[in-house]
Amino acid sequence: MNYPFARRMNQIPRSFVREILKVTEHPDIISFAGGLPNPHSFPVDAIKDATSKVLTEEGENVLQYSTTEGYGPLRELIAGRYGLHGLDVDADEILITNGSQQCLDLVGKVFLDQHDGVVMEKPTYLAAIQAFGLYEPQFYSVPLMEDGVDTMALENLLSAKKIKLFYSVTSFQNPTGITYSADKRKEVAEILTEHDTILVEDNPYGEIRFIGEDISPIKSHLPDSILFGTFSKIVSPGMRMGWIVAPSKIMENLITAKQASDLHSNYFTQRVVYQYLQDNDVDTHIQKIRELYKSQRDQMVQSIKDYLPGEVEYTKPEGGMFLWVTLPEGMSSLELFEYAIKEKVAFVPGDAFYTDHPHHNTMRLNFSNSSKEEIVEGMQRLGNAIEKMQTDN
Amino acid sequence: MNYPFARRMNQIPRSFVREILKVTEHPDIISFAGGLPNPHSFPVDAIKDATSKVLTEEGENVLQYSTTEGYGPLRELIAGRYGLHGLDVDADEILITNGSQQCLDLVGKVFLDQHDGVVMEKPTYLAAIQAFGLYEPQFYSVPLMEDGVDTMALENLLSAKKIKLFYSVTSFQNPTGITYSADKRKEVAEILTEHDTILVEDNPYGEIRFIGEDISPIKSHLPDSILFGTFSKIVSPGMRMGWIVAPSKIMENLITAKQASDLHSNYFTQRVVYQYLQDNDVDTHIQKIRELYKSQRDQMVQSIKDYLPGEVEYTKPEGGMFLWVTLPEGMSSLELFEYAIKEKVAFVPGDAFYTDHPHHNTMRLNFSNSSKEEIVEGMQRLGNAIEKMQTDN
Repeated sequence: MNYPFARRMNQIPRSFVREILKVTEHPDIISFAGGLPNPHSFPVDAIKDATSKVLTEEGENVLQYSTTEGYGPLRELIAGRYGLHGLDVDADEILITNGSQQCLDLVGKVFLDQHDGVVMEKPTYLAAIQAFGLYEPQFYSVPLMEDGVDTMALENLLSAKKIKLFYSVTSFQNPTGITYSADKRKEVAEILTEHDTILVEDNPYGEIRFIGEDISPIKSHLPDSILFGTFSKIVSPGMRMGWIVAPSKIMENLITAKQASDLHSNYFTQRVVYQYLQDNDVDTHIQKIRELYKSQRDQMVQSIKDYLPGEVEYTKPEGGMFLWVTLPEGMSSLELFEYAIKEKVAFVPGDAFYTDHPHHNTMRLNFSNSSKEEIVEGMQRLGNAIEKMQTDN
Repeated sequence: MNYPFARRMNQIPRSFVREILKVTEHPDIISFAGGLPNPHSFPVDAIKDATSKVLTEEGENVLQYSTTEGYGPLRELIAGRYGLHGLDVDADEILITNGSQQCLDLVGKVFLDQHDGVVMEKPTYLAAIQAFGLYEPQFYSVPLMEDGVDTMALENLLSAKKIKLFYSVTSFQNPTGITYSADKRKEVAEILTEHDTILVEDNPYGEIRFIGEDISPIKSHLPDSILFGTFSKIVSPGMRMGWIVAPSKIMENLITAKQASDLHSNYFTQRVVYQYLQDNDVDTHIQKIRELYKSQRDQMVQSIKDYLPGEVEYTKPEGGMFLWVTLPEGMSSLELFEYAIKEKVAFVPGDAFYTDHPHHNTMRLNFSNSSKEEIVEGMQRLGNAIEKMQTDN
């Protein structure tokens, strides 16, 4: 039978990273390709205690259907944590989702008709291209600079085109590790207000800052905007617990979309995560993750200096899980990937992170999921791969 | 700010049932309105043991990101259970989802462009109207008879219109409790094959048969079709664990859509449910649910005879959680709802379950979530409500 798939499915290539990750699954390969948190950062015993407590004390209640919005006390706890970071959020403005990936899908569903204009950072988070892509928008992109998006280019684009959404990962961006400066955040808020474009601010890594001072989300200057959060990087990604913060008029539609999509997020897990957060000092836990990731990031920066050619440029992120490498002009990271796999090291070629005109000489390195020893060994292998490719060309 | 929502959001009213459920949340009200399994049927202690075991033995592994398809051994276990029921399914044809509600969303995403034809049963599952509705299809409906859909009307409709999908709840349907006979299943398979329409067979209640013999899904006659399943009615609905069975060509697109929607289903819970199923005899557990629900259904049938007017018609389902009542012609169940709330009893007026030309004199009663005593008392109240309305009119 020839299946009559929807038009939207023709536009979406099967995830590039997904295919790449398959190649890199071989145990001999040191992989900087994935986006996995370090499993040593998962609070296994505390989760076990929380689960046991919730099932003992609440029993069948935590296994029943629940509300679409999510568990009230969990939403209040999240709102309270924003308060500590200087952002005034009400629990009613929070919807619990299956990780921040579902936030992308719900926002796409609620806002995007075919051909609607969406501005992405250049480069941008690959899975956001996929999620929004299924709603068939017209993507535009604006380059990232060291301190955030190129605001002049953004201003020009918004003046020239009708743009519904601007999607931005404002802290320790995936893939580049870049963080918007405080000034740039204000500037972006002003530009978006002027052009009635809605900010979709994704902040999965915000709590994993290991250098410098915390900077409030752009949403603190732009109450009408949408903000995503997640427990994936501070508790557990496998539990798929994220949330959307949005003003009430948007929230109403997000709830309708969430209900139609899967009724509500896993209630059992919501209760477990809430219990975990009640009974443990998550900030102490986060501090440990920060120290761990800083040491891995420091090692990767050092190993780039030690083993990659001097012409290679790279970001030095103040948090998060990724670092962005720019090879000398004219070098292709896709070609390098083939050499790298032979040397048993992997990364994600930059091409996957662009909605248009990719910079072929870029690549993403993940440092959170490898030990320092693996980072040293892996970067040595990457250096060898580059050398062999240069010899061949 | 005026938010520029997508066109699809204009078409979807906020869930009627959702609004109704709010009214019925008052503890004084006996509610036959919801669609909740009986919480006494949740295996709380066994889930606690399974969780503890999984976290102790597998630790951080079960908290990490995982594959989009779902946990392999769980998919194999599900495939194996189909084998016992005479349906040949490969684990690779199974995708783990957030309950069967997400199956609806993913199928909508993969197949439906605006104005595509979708045939629904009349009446049909409300949340399927909502989920598909967001993809803006053209709905058609075909009446249900006692032994399943009116096949002559289905044949005529498929001959006249181009129809992509036929959505059917083939056993103990929500809302009517109707089950397709074995003959009707074959007949539907033949009609759909002839017209190249894809069957979307939803089977959340199939295992909760308390009278009569098990009948294989239509999919056993129609390998190209899509079948949904869920652990919501046999383990826990709050855990949001369902699955789609589909042939590999469809599965490929479903996986792409699932990945874009939320990467993968809660891996922690997948492992817990799998462990529960490994360590317990779920069929013994299901047998208990069947006995429980049969006694509740029997009580409701008896109470209809005892307390409702003789002209009232009703289905006598052989399984599931719902029973469908048809009031005398000209009576409005929406009007009755107002009287019922005053008498402190609730149900869902039938109007919500139609995509066109609702039968205003119909209503859905849930029997799984009330004790026998509540059923007696609630039906007495419903009888009183009908009497008062008849007196007023």
